[in-house]
Amino acid sequence: MTLSDGELRARIVDVPDFPTAGVVFKDISPLLADPATFVAVVDALVEQSGPVDKVVGIEARGFILAAPVAYHLGAGFVPVRKPGKLPGPTHETSYELEYGSNVLQVHRDAFAPGDRVLVVDDVLATGGTAAAAVRLVEHDGGEVVGLSVLLELGFLGGRAALAKAHPGLPVHALLPY
Amino acid sequence: MTLSDGELRARIVDVPDFPTAGVVFKDISPLLADPATFVAVVDALVEQSGPVDKVVGIEARGFILAAPVAYHLGAGFVPVRKPGKLPGPTHETSYELEYGSNVLQVHRDAFAPGDRVLVVDDVLATGGTAAAAVRLVEHDGGEVVGLSVLLELGFLGGRAALAKAHPGLPVHALLPY
Repeated sequence: MTLSDGELRARIVDVPDFPTAGVVFKDISPLLADPATFVAVVDALVEQSGPVDKVVGIEARGFILAAPVAYHLGAGFVPVRKPGKLPGPTHETSYELEYGSNVLQVHRDAFAPGDRVLVVDDVLATGGTAAAAVRLVEHDGGEVVGLSVLLELGFLGGRAALAKAHPGLPVHALLPY
Repeated sequence: MTLSDGELRARIVDVPDFPTAGVVFKDISPLLADPATFVAVVDALVEQSGPVDKVVGIEARGFILAAPVAYHLGAGFVPVRKPGKLPGPTHETSYELEYGSNVLQVHRDAFAPGDRVLVVDDVLATGGTAAAAVRLVEHDGGEVVGLSVLLELGFLGGRAALAKAHPGLPVHALLPY
């Protein structure tokens, strides 16, 4: 990464009580809007990855980082989406997240056995979303070779939860909090 | 573009009656999942653009193309989102789309006067979504230098509607239908 940890953190803004009371939301909009930090973050996520066949992005903010990572790696992009958004037949799984619960879906034909898959998201919080994405990839035999995120909210224990659910899964975070 | 028009169109699948009865949805998932076509589409969208300061992506599928275009152009990325998703103060505008109506928001501090902005989306249908994005950019003095889309559904008249609402706006579509 050509930018310092501090230069990146300076473009992440705490927003209290969003989306619900008591939650401090880390807004990455200023980082995305600044060309130097946006490019540096994508490049750093790419550098953490070996060769992969597909990159998974999780709706919706996850798309913003996962798609350029896929582009740079020369991999296909597969969206993991909320219910009702994907037009074809899907697999789905439910998960708990920092504030509430949700369901995620992926197209049934998105992965073939042996596909090497990198999951990219903006934030690792409780790990529920990431674990759901891993389950969806593995449903049809895809192999998740890593999870890469911009921010890790360490106090929420996502890394430990993922290690329990998916032992050995490499987890990379650019900016731990 | 290194791939032919036919090679790209072969990876776009018609899904009847999605999201509502009578609508034929063009699913670009197979195109995104194929590395060669995904890279070719992003590169072609980049080639249509001059230098810009920011690239706007429209939630959610628009993010998948707009983010790598921003990355390749070395521009900042600004998301235009559905209500309640952006944590900071926003501008908003309502618009009609192919099936229903909706509201879009952008952060108030996203653009500065004189910013050159490219809007990227997956589909140009009636033009309502694109016109709404243009209004949001212009609200704070940003200058939309072009709209680039993967698919244009010509029979819905979006290009003419945009020409009426925003005379002189360059509109590029890779694959007209």
